[in-house]
Amino acid sequence: MRLSRYFLPVLKETPAEAQIVSHRLMLRAGMIKQASAGIYSWLPLGYRVLKRIEQVVHEEQQRAGHIPVLMPTLQSADLWQESGRYDAYGDELLRIRDRHDRDMLYGPTNEEMITDIFRSYVSSYKALPLTLYHIQWKFRDEVRPRFGVMRGREFLMKDGYNFDLTKEDALHAYNRHLVTYLRTYERLGLQAIPMRADSGPIGGDDTHEFLVLAETGESEVFYDAEITDLKFGDRAIDYDSVDQCRAVLEEFTSRYARTDETHDPALFDKVPAERQRVARGIEVGQIFYFGTKYSEAMGATVQGPDGKPVPVHMGSHGIGVSRLVGAIIEASHDDKGIIWPEGVTPFACGIVNLRQGDDAADAACEQLYGALAAIGLEALYDDRDERAGAKFATMDLIGLPWRITVGPRGLKNGVVELTSRRTGESEELAPEAAIRKLADIYAPHLGAARA
Amino acid sequence: MRLSRYFLPVLKETPAEAQIVSHRLMLRAGMIKQASAGIYSWLPLGYRVLKRIEQVVHEEQQRAGHIPVLMPTLQSADLWQESGRYDAYGDELLRIRDRHDRDMLYGPTNEEMITDIFRSYVSSYKALPLTLYHIQWKFRDEVRPRFGVMRGREFLMKDGYNFDLTKEDALHAYNRHLVTYLRTYERLGLQAIPMRADSGPIGGDDTHEFLVLAETGESEVFYDAEITDLKFGDRAIDYDSVDQCRAVLEEFTSRYARTDETHDPALFDKVPAERQRVARGIEVGQIFYFGTKYSEAMGATVQGPDGKPVPVHMGSHGIGVSRLVGAIIEASHDDKGIIWPEGVTPFACGIVNLRQGDDAADAACEQLYGALAAIGLEALYDDRDERAGAKFATMDLIGLPWRITVGPRGLKNGVVELTSRRTGESEELAPEAAIRKLADIYAPHLGAARA
Repeated sequence: MRLSRYFLPVLKETPAEAQIVSHRLMLRAGMIKQASAGIYSWLPLGYRVLKRIEQVVHEEQQRAGHIPVLMPTLQSADLWQESGRYDAYGDELLRIRDRHDRDMLYGPTNEEMITDIFRSYVSSYKALPLTLYHIQWKFRDEVRPRFGVMRGREFLMKDGYNFDLTKEDALHAYNRHLVTYLRTYERLGLQAIPMRADSGPIGGDDTHEFLVLAETGESEVFYDAEITDLKFGDRAIDYDSVDQCRAVLEEFTSRYARTDETHDPALFDKVPAERQRVARGIEVGQIFYFGTKYSEAMGATVQGPDGKPVPVHMGSHGIGVSRLVGAIIEASHDDKGIIWPEGVTPFACGIVNLRQGDDAADAACEQLYGALAAIGLEALYDDRDERAGAKFATMDLIGLPWRITVGPRGLKNGVVELTSRRTGESEELAPEAAIRKLADIYAPHLGAARA
Repeated sequence: MRLSRYFLPVLKETPAEAQIVSHRLMLRAGMIKQASAGIYSWLPLGYRVLKRIEQVVHEEQQRAGHIPVLMPTLQSADLWQESGRYDAYGDELLRIRDRHDRDMLYGPTNEEMITDIFRSYVSSYKALPLTLYHIQWKFRDEVRPRFGVMRGREFLMKDGYNFDLTKEDALHAYNRHLVTYLRTYERLGLQAIPMRADSGPIGGDDTHEFLVLAETGESEVFYDAEITDLKFGDRAIDYDSVDQCRAVLEEFTSRYARTDETHDPALFDKVPAERQRVARGIEVGQIFYFGTKYSEAMGATVQGPDGKPVPVHMGSHGIGVSRLVGAIIEASHDDKGIIWPEGVTPFACGIVNLRQGDDAADAACEQLYGALAAIGLEALYDDRDERAGAKFATMDLIGLPWRITVGPRGLKNGVVELTSRRTGESEELAPEAAIRKLADIYAPHLGAARA
């Protein structure tokens, strides 16, 4: 993308209404604009990050055999009356009446609707196991929406639902989801720690939240320092293997890690004192096993192997897609701006032309731009007639992890400058070498489509 | 995708509530499920087609330099009061009151919101031309929703908005959009004819609708038969060239083609009698130039080259993404089911194993499945233990354009059968030759990501 033809409305002033750094930086970098309280428009740069996260979530869900669907944003109140949640959910549920005075609602979650889909079509245990998921906009009418996309009212969420014949099978689905979540967060450049959690209005006994450590996190968290050494990495896993998935769960949940909601001081004291950590965290996902809560209430039964009807065992599993954009920034920024991990960056690198209009500099930039595109890397080329300082400040603010700086002086020596946003370190190298280096850096992230 | 692990709830019975063929076939093929009146869940097969159309629309918009954003589904009533449409829009506007008794609405379109974004950030003509678009769910509270996704209440639409300094520039944007739409529909396997239209509640003088000819179309259309010979094809076009875009507009709109709303019998009579056609059409898109209607009402001005403030000239441009799924089926089906064009098919081909459990047949199917995946073609492999007749009927119903049939008898002669859904013709050929043939068929459609 050529910046001269892009729409990147960066702000010089820090917006007064933004209380936390991700909100400030998203406004300043021209990623979002508030439409009304807790409701945002995603401007071009923000939209790219959002789509990128969505893509990673899709890939990791489908890798595990989970099947994408898309349920609507508006739901009939009838289903929620069946489950008993229509009255129980409280004022966060946005209730709507249509022109025929039918009671509707803007879905904050989809347990009822997916259970209705299931019971409409599936009648035999032979169709199990089954996990359906979607990524769709949801609404929660927060009393005091704040922190930008971190606690908005209209938000994008991935929610998935497993249907299994037995509790044992459903716990395998639970473990399998835990593995997919670990992979997803790592690809997004985040360390998200599974912590024992409360189930809240979804219901159920088994549940883990995934928390990203950040000073501005809304939850106080207590954990064994050893847990931050764990990495899922690119280990191969057979998602059908009960043992492999359970082993990952055990590895990542055996050490103490809880939020203030479930914190148990006596248990925490058993962690060696030098490994006890108290910090703050941002919740970016949660998995639940809730058994037959919805299937019994709504009659979602299948014929078991013995011919008798059995209510299916279910769980639901959510990732806050729009919230993740803020969470990643909270975890990865400095005083100049955002620092995107390679897995979610809106552009692979920036190209800064120090002397727009200089034939050699313009030609070198165009060539770099084209060569990067040819290997699947889209650059943001700052081709504006601006001072170098302003161009650098914009690149630092919007946080592309790599910057190539091109100027007449370097070109005389056959070099450009490649700079890491994270470390600030630069090296001079031939344009071809810079492209090769970026190709290596992004190799693990390619293959994934960038819409 | 292996069918044994997929969720494809095909129906044997024809649902009584469906009045038109696309609605019947979408229900029977397990593509959608009604959630409430005019509101649908997209089941896995339907979701794949929807995403595929979305992807093609994105690619063709971005090819023309149009920039994607994402505006929220819920809007504050304030903006609509500014434009005067809050009261004018009538009962199709779904009005909502939030917990703080603020008036909101579920957006049926986004002229106000995009104009607000524009005026918040752009102050100089130097930022023009600019076209922003999004693909987002919208709501129109139809009195009598019907025809499945063709006339639903919650629907997915691409809407784009151009901002230009002069009327002349805005008309170039209009022409440029017309070109992108012609390309988009052709990639989707549709012939959509631009017809002079009425502007309705959007406002403005210049507007064309795109209509797909189909017996079940809601509009009566009148046209010169010569128009159906026009093809955009894969001609190269420079979207910055005013002349090239205008030439396409002239080529595709100079012959008589109007809906009943704008039909002029006297003019139609000048078309030679043997070329006069009266038929029915489905509207799948519309482009508008409406000048300064919104920019004046909402104060969207820029500083012109002479330093004086100028209200920008705008247009808006919509494609009905979810409606297109139905429109394509209306235009492409037979009595056995759907016939997907290659550009939108949910899977590149089906693989039917005639003897599941036979070692040679199973191995050959697995090999075909893997070899197709390796060249970017996802097959739907019917690996169920079912009769051949049932497998063929399912494949015919869901309409994959190509089917490979694998059985022990053919394998003894080293061949499989490749069948065209459209013509019903089959040929026997070696598995490698079948793969090569499919690679050639899909070559124009690859490169596009399949999420």
